[in-house]
Amino acid sequence: MNSLDRLRKFYLHSLEDGFSEPEWNRHPDALYAPQRYILGLGGKRIRPILALMAAEAHGCDASVALPVAHAVERFHNFSLIHDDIMDKAKIRRGKKTVHENWGMNTGILSGDALLVMAYKSLLQSPAEHFSELLKSFNQTALEVCEGQQMDMSFEKIENIEEGQYLHMIRNKTAVLLGCSLEMGSIISGGSKVVSKALYNFGIELGMSFQIHDDLLDAYGSTKTIGKNVGADILAKKKTLLWVHFSKNNPGKLNSIFDSESDEIVQKILSEMESSGTRDFVEKQRRSHFDNAMNSLKEIEEDCQVSDFRKFANWIYKRKF
Amino acid sequence: MNSLDRLRKFYLHSLEDGFSEPEWNRHPDALYAPQRYILGLGGKRIRPILALMAAEAHGCDASVALPVAHAVERFHNFSLIHDDIMDKAKIRRGKKTVHENWGMNTGILSGDALLVMAYKSLLQSPAEHFSELLKSFNQTALEVCEGQQMDMSFEKIENIEEGQYLHMIRNKTAVLLGCSLEMGSIISGGSKVVSKALYNFGIELGMSFQIHDDLLDAYGSTKTIGKNVGADILAKKKTLLWVHFSKNNPGKLNSIFDSESDEIVQKILSEMESSGTRDFVEKQRRSHFDNAMNSLKEIEEDCQVSDFRKFANWIYKRKF
Repeated sequence: MNSLDRLRKFYLHSLEDGFSEPEWNRHPDALYAPQRYILGLGGKRIRPILALMAAEAHGCDASVALPVAHAVERFHNFSLIHDDIMDKAKIRRGKKTVHENWGMNTGILSGDALLVMAYKSLLQSPAEHFSELLKSFNQTALEVCEGQQMDMSFEKIENIEEGQYLHMIRNKTAVLLGCSLEMGSIISGGSKVVSKALYNFGIELGMSFQIHDDLLDAYGSTKTIGKNVGADILAKKKTLLWVHFSKNNPGKLNSIFDSESDEIVQKILSEMESSGTRDFVEKQRRSHFDNAMNSLKEIEEDCQVSDFRKFANWIYKRKF
Repeated sequence: MNSLDRLRKFYLHSLEDGFSEPEWNRHPDALYAPQRYILGLGGKRIRPILALMAAEAHGCDASVALPVAHAVERFHNFSLIHDDIMDKAKIRRGKKTVHENWGMNTGILSGDALLVMAYKSLLQSPAEHFSELLKSFNQTALEVCEGQQMDMSFEKIENIEEGQYLHMIRNKTAVLLGCSLEMGSIISGGSKVVSKALYNFGIELGMSFQIHDDLLDAYGSTKTIGKNVGADILAKKKTLLWVHFSKNNPGKLNSIFDSESDEIVQKILSEMESSGTRDFVEKQRRSHFDNAMNSLKEIEEDCQVSDFRKFANWIYKRKF
């Protein structure tokens, strides 16, 4: 993925440059150091890259989309700081989480400030686009909060419908991918039709991506996913596998857990496979991927979609 | 204060109306109920009223400034939700705080969403003003976070300079009053000179107001302030009285606290009085009030400042 690597480097370079700008050297440093820290921890930078790709798809220089690329990455990292507090997570990308390093109060506050910094990035856009960009961004920001609230509520609910689960991951994960593409398109002068099609591409790809994650956790190899296979199942996390299996095999999961066997995870995985749950989830993953590709097809005469196709295939083909 | 009461009623009416709009009926309700709750708890509504007054000062209907009035009140309440979590406060305006009612995680998340809702209000403004409004709002939002971070840091620092204290209250309290006026002026077509003068009026009035609060806590009557006199002193809170007295009487406060006398607060208050600290703080309060009035004088030929003068005097004359 040469184009991907090039755009990632381009974004990272502008991010590093940004850190020496006066806006990052505000006082007190106790508020800004945590923000620079989490943005500096790395990650795949999928969201800003999608925004930059949207600019290039319209024949623009990638730099045109930098204000929105920074905005979505800042927003994403704001949500990570606050999610880590809510999840009591100690480690993020192999390093201490912000609240582990600086305490909860500074975690809350530096997250708040990073959300404002995201809006500050948007303000670097040409004024003619403010209205459309803010509309997309505000809507997405609320939906991400709504998705996180749904995810927290699910912990306390026994029976989740597949539709509820899909709505939750749409909000929590997929809309920000859609928004990155939509805003990258808007700021590059893309038409409403194209911007909306790219938004839908991002939503569908994001959902396929999240369902893929659930499958990898269950059926991937420890080497590929970097953690023990079946961690979600042991934690009784309500993934699509869990939700579908529970609904179609009432009481079964509890009885396997109650059996206190040494091989609970293996037993559940094998039941999920033989009962058709794995197959159902695989089909969901494929179906959202196909929807994503169809969104591209609608606009292939209006802009350059080939890099998006490569990107989507790269996302889809992560190994088990 | 007829004008004040009228504007407060007008704002409250539009707020109540707003609660029946679709934007407040989003799902999940677990995310939006806490926002409606805190906005419904009351309060003086000083910030939105200042925004509406700015519109009338320019001969506009107050409703012109409603988008910014809602934005500043939403922002203010977002900051209250998060501050209450950081301060572990259980009661706000005589009712349970949001995190006491719904738990810390929903407190963090509904605060985040309320901050986004503030930006959503701003988007109701005419597009021609977006750029200026967002610039003022973003800058203010960051400064409020900075003020809160400074306030938290002060708890762990022994020697605070008066200048540091004044900088902290400027950010934590005063800038949002300034921003309410500035944005109310901008959205009503006020010139840069007038908008900036009103901003400065708000800053200086806000500082005078906060210093007044410190004095009321120490020298007010229990009946007027609704809590025990000297609560700040007992909590060793670094108010301007504390900061000035500590600097000029090193070791004195500790020795009085060590004495374990029954009348620690009374003794400290009387020492603060005889040593000139109370007088110094009174002069600071007066000086910021005078600065506020001077800001109005600069623009009295460009807009109607008489209501602002009445408002400032009303703020200044709160009883001891």
